[in-house]
Amino acid sequence: MKIKNKHWQTIWLNDDKNSVNIIDQTLLPHKFKILNLKKVNDFYSAIKNMNVRGAPLIGVTGAYGLMCAIKENPSYENIKKNFDLLNSARPTAINLKWALERIFNKVIDLDEDQRFSLAYQEAVLIEKEDILMCEKIGNYGRDILKDLFLKKKSNDKNARLNILTHCNAGWLATVDWGTALAPIYKANRAGIDLHVWVDETRPRNQGASLTAYELSNEGIPNTVIVDNAGGHLMQHGLVDAVIVGSDRTTRKGDVCNKIGTYLKALAAKDNNIPFYVALPFSTIDWNINNGIDEIPIENRSEDEVSHIIGLNSSQEISKVRLIPEGSKCINPSFDVTPSALVTALITEKGIGYINNGGLESLYQEKIF
Amino acid sequence: MKIKNKHWQTIWLNDDKNSVNIIDQTLLPHKFKILNLKKVNDFYSAIKNMNVRGAPLIGVTGAYGLMCAIKENPSYENIKKNFDLLNSARPTAINLKWALERIFNKVIDLDEDQRFSLAYQEAVLIEKEDILMCEKIGNYGRDILKDLFLKKKSNDKNARLNILTHCNAGWLATVDWGTALAPIYKANRAGIDLHVWVDETRPRNQGASLTAYELSNEGIPNTVIVDNAGGHLMQHGLVDAVIVGSDRTTRKGDVCNKIGTYLKALAAKDNNIPFYVALPFSTIDWNINNGIDEIPIENRSEDEVSHIIGLNSSQEISKVRLIPEGSKCINPSFDVTPSALVTALITEKGIGYINNGGLESLYQEKIF
Repeated sequence: MKIKNKHWQTIWLNDDKNSVNIIDQTLLPHKFKILNLKKVNDFYSAIKNMNVRGAPLIGVTGAYGLMCAIKENPSYENIKKNFDLLNSARPTAINLKWALERIFNKVIDLDEDQRFSLAYQEAVLIEKEDILMCEKIGNYGRDILKDLFLKKKSNDKNARLNILTHCNAGWLATVDWGTALAPIYKANRAGIDLHVWVDETRPRNQGASLTAYELSNEGIPNTVIVDNAGGHLMQHGLVDAVIVGSDRTTRKGDVCNKIGTYLKALAAKDNNIPFYVALPFSTIDWNINNGIDEIPIENRSEDEVSHIIGLNSSQEISKVRLIPEGSKCINPSFDVTPSALVTALITEKGIGYINNGGLESLYQEKIF
Repeated sequence: MKIKNKHWQTIWLNDDKNSVNIIDQTLLPHKFKILNLKKVNDFYSAIKNMNVRGAPLIGVTGAYGLMCAIKENPSYENIKKNFDLLNSARPTAINLKWALERIFNKVIDLDEDQRFSLAYQEAVLIEKEDILMCEKIGNYGRDILKDLFLKKKSNDKNARLNILTHCNAGWLATVDWGTALAPIYKANRAGIDLHVWVDETRPRNQGASLTAYELSNEGIPNTVIVDNAGGHLMQHGLVDAVIVGSDRTTRKGDVCNKIGTYLKALAAKDNNIPFYVALPFSTIDWNINNGIDEIPIENRSEDEVSHIIGLNSSQEISKVRLIPEGSKCINPSFDVTPSALVTALITEKGIGYINNGGLESLYQEKIF
């Protein structure tokens, strides 16, 4: 998508096939900087420190990371070691493991000297598939938004669709287009008049810093709100739909997404507002049924709660402490939204309405 | 309550009866500073800029402000003008108007030279009544917490009660003791083992900065969380009760409190966790029934969302910008929690269980 009217991807391979470039997302929206990743430890750190974030982009980054490891040393031991290393960078991101397994399975039965070439092909394929997948999610989601828009417009010819989103499941979380934001981009390009409420999404503020940045660069009207405000806006008819992403979805449709998603889903239900989850099919975990009981939630550093990063009056990126000296905090990074609160899942394979019998029946022809 | 083992009130009259002192709450928890308020404009600014905040403390501050205005010029015109000025500093705070009216009504039929003396007596009375009221709320609330604690302890002799609170309805929001935190202070002093989850409470972070500060200074274990985290903790059995304050409560029991309260009430309901609201009886607005339709919500400055204040690495209080340049935000400061989500109101007149027929029947003998 666009930054200052130029098209960018979040990750791209260098011509030498030896390394990739990423946009350093920890500096956005205040600074725009490209990072070059070459050694496996570069990839590990980029995932761990959230220079890249978002399930799909983490997957593609992991795939390129394993490819670079194979280029350096194609032995089984080295591949296995770096598979485990990369996989440990974000334990909640099922997509990371999925992408690593694709590379691993593609090359592991080959002679060592053939492994890099196939790893390269597979990593590029994962990248291209990701872009296509997001576009498909975007098209399915656009159709939902179009229906909502036409319905609203039939009562008010000046209607504008108000969509609330949490965190960043935009193109910066993928290679391009995004998941939760892809329907919005597609709808905008289809001429649907819309406005987005952007949850700032504490503690890391990916909404305030990344989603607002993306939307503004695409010319889509948006307003940043604190995470506390969405329920109030819904009570007052100012939200027509909620769209969020998902890091991991169970076979019954429970959605593990950025902490706070569950609270918005409760408010949407209480106010009869549709709550959509846009996700890559690959992030559905068919081994898990009850998300609350079965999905381990990553506790990240206290520092993300106790401190925050912003731009100071000297236009420097600066970290400030928010809590009293000596106070404690905890930082669970995800929560689980029970499927009963989800209106539908939007994947690249189509729209799945939860009420009609769960994911297994929805996608039956696709998976069995 | 205590700061570094010394007892403080949030506001106290100087011996000359000419001015009052307050703790400047905009600098907490990083700096401790006393402000002297003398002219009506000092009081107006202190309320408007939230150097004092919290419905009861705003009321007491308003009363002393009007007293100082009367000392300067006891004419009807001057009293009326300054009543209106002070009342305009925080339109949502019904307690402010209530306190100003008490001073006004006490003096307005007297000769001008008698007015200051009675205003002084009435302002001191409001201050003393506020302390007593908070203690009563604390005692009633302590009994609720004691019951919850004994029940939990009957299953687990090492049980500790986990209470979640939003924003700051502690002693810093009153003259002493607080409303929502008074039951916690009283329970702690009664030997009940408890721990408090402190919502940071964006945008102004009164939880992270004030509630955590209060609790730690009183020696009560507490953990700061982002506002997004409470639902997740409730899903996992880590919250035994929620207690919040209220700026304004309707006669049917709808609660207008800091933005985000409604989301916590939804999550408490969804997880069968009792949700208590502690409030001065004077903040019940008997003229209003449906809070969502009838209570105007104050929209505060965008700057509170786009920027945040903290302590930088040089130990200076510093403001940083959180959103992209040119992005917009809005800042609704309160929301309304429908009475159906409230387990009980705790006032100085007793505990009112909403289910038993609404506030009018609850407090009938007190008000009719």
